[in-house]
Amino acid sequence: MLVAASDLERFIRQAFEALGLPGADAERLGVLITRADLYGADTHGVFRMPQYASRLRRGAVNRQPNIRVIKETVGTAVVDGDNGMGHLVVERATEIAIDKAERTGIGWVGVRESNHAGPGFLYARMPLARDMIGIYMAVGSSNHMPPWGGVESLLGTNPIAVAVPGLEGPPFVLDMATSVSSFGRIRVKQQRGEPLPEGWLVDREGKPITDSKRADEGLLVPIGGPKGSGLALMIALLAGTLNTAAAGREVVDFNKSSEPTNTGHAFAALKIAAFDDVLAVKRRVDALLRDIAASEPVPGGDGVRVPGARGEALYRERVAGGIPLHPKLVDSLRTLASELKIAAP
Amino acid sequence: MLVAASDLERFIRQAFEALGLPGADAERLGVLITRADLYGADTHGVFRMPQYASRLRRGAVNRQPNIRVIKETVGTAVVDGDNGMGHLVVERATEIAIDKAERTGIGWVGVRESNHAGPGFLYARMPLARDMIGIYMAVGSSNHMPPWGGVESLLGTNPIAVAVPGLEGPPFVLDMATSVSSFGRIRVKQQRGEPLPEGWLVDREGKPITDSKRADEGLLVPIGGPKGSGLALMIALLAGTLNTAAAGREVVDFNKSSEPTNTGHAFAALKIAAFDDVLAVKRRVDALLRDIAASEPVPGGDGVRVPGARGEALYRERVAGGIPLHPKLVDSLRTLASELKIAAP
Repeated sequence: MLVAASDLERFIRQAFEALGLPGADAERLGVLITRADLYGADTHGVFRMPQYASRLRRGAVNRQPNIRVIKETVGTAVVDGDNGMGHLVVERATEIAIDKAERTGIGWVGVRESNHAGPGFLYARMPLARDMIGIYMAVGSSNHMPPWGGVESLLGTNPIAVAVPGLEGPPFVLDMATSVSSFGRIRVKQQRGEPLPEGWLVDREGKPITDSKRADEGLLVPIGGPKGSGLALMIALLAGTLNTAAAGREVVDFNKSSEPTNTGHAFAALKIAAFDDVLAVKRRVDALLRDIAASEPVPGGDGVRVPGARGEALYRERVAGGIPLHPKLVDSLRTLASELKIAAP
Repeated sequence: MLVAASDLERFIRQAFEALGLPGADAERLGVLITRADLYGADTHGVFRMPQYASRLRRGAVNRQPNIRVIKETVGTAVVDGDNGMGHLVVERATEIAIDKAERTGIGWVGVRESNHAGPGFLYARMPLARDMIGIYMAVGSSNHMPPWGGVESLLGTNPIAVAVPGLEGPPFVLDMATSVSSFGRIRVKQQRGEPLPEGWLVDREGKPITDSKRADEGLLVPIGGPKGSGLALMIALLAGTLNTAAAGREVVDFNKSSEPTNTGHAFAALKIAAFDDVLAVKRRVDALLRDIAASEPVPGGDGVRVPGARGEALYRERVAGGIPLHPKLVDSLRTLASELKIAAP
């Protein structure tokens, strides 16, 4: 089923209004969550609505948060999200980082008391229009990954997203988990009864799990072994610990608990004009990304792809032709719509 | 052979003096390069002296550079290294970032016209004593890694190093390449006639190379496939392109060429007091790292290790008992010493 972006936005806005959020916040969530789907983040956009709704109805997320700066220097700030929807909190943090970068060349904002905020590229992309680079990190909303060498899940998929603007070409947009696979992708394989590629999940003996029916005993594998584990811990420290947000054992599984998650994020904006002429930098970005995209592919492979290119293509396609929704997702959104007494998308 | 740190420092200082560097610069290089060995970076410390000497003698590196800030804002700077030794250039950049962070909460310094600077942790560790976090990125000094899906080596091992101070426990110090293995480790396997683990190198068809004799046809594999490739490209953009330093096809192989490499780096210092009480943050860092280190290990594995712990242990060991040098390295340093008419270590 294909849904027009405007209809999806309308549905999301009405859903949040029905859940008790102020109109302006509900509208902003409609825009941001729909944008996630437009760029192809199919497991991080409207797909999450039933989960968000469930947490709001359980009182696990604050409907009317007082999102505020609790500490500030010329180049930095700490934002307390007052347990509001993560999208609203991180967008505010991003705006503050951009304002600071405008004046000081760089702005870095730490976030505490936030929640799941959708895909990181939403925020990393925001400074692009201001000729800035965006860097976003988040502590994952549940721990499914042990530190390298261990079997206790003390780390999340802790993602990083970075966006760098081009001039004529598309921007560079990297948005990645520090685990080989997310649990979302594993759930999809499980649903379809497909086996898991080796290297995604291991059991408590460190042995690969490929039977997707056994996914729930599995531990996520970090990219590059100790390296991905180190990156996930680095993000836990920068986005979590530094901001008095949850990290390690403090992380609350947002699927299972009704407690506040105290999710941490970090956002940095870098003003390109602080480094060189903006046009010159953007031309060099174009040239580098063009060289990468045009380089010789592995014979018989899928070709060389620049991070962000697929998202750009999907965005154009979906703005024009609508957003494809899986029948199971449509069902769950219809159920939610009827519960909230609003029109389904 | 075990060498005292002071003797290694003396050797390195005298070598650089003999190569025409000012005394103060030679002394600083002695300290920094020895420090790399003290912390266990056996392929990035004194091991590189013959290579550094060769480039200096070929006139490929500037003996008396005018390292200077060419652009500056409140929170950022661009440092031009004037093709000097990378260690001197990056140390200067780090000092500037720390000064800026002291006043504005964060400092970010981009570097151009630099050279190979040894292991990144040297710089990432520098802000620790000032109660700051250090973040370092560098464009690798040769391209051995293709972008994911490709076979043209347009990326280096582009490393990132991050250090976060603890209170009573050791700091978190991550220092990693974005490739599964460095070429240095592969050369060691080659020298010993050992096979390569699958996943380190592939041929131009994308098939694994495990015969270390075939290493020179090999392409490095990024961690996590497209993810490591994306991280390497992100670092090329932030440490290279943004600072008018080399990236992609512009990268000059420092082993093969006598041209300036125009190596790029990026350094950020984050002042902890801008986020929360310093002692409180450090206590939380201690607690998180302790939880990780004490977590249940994979049965029969090597245990759970916190990034930086091995370096700390080696540092203590080597300060007390000396730095072990491989017989082949001792030979090459003796040759260099006799060429430069100085005492060998």
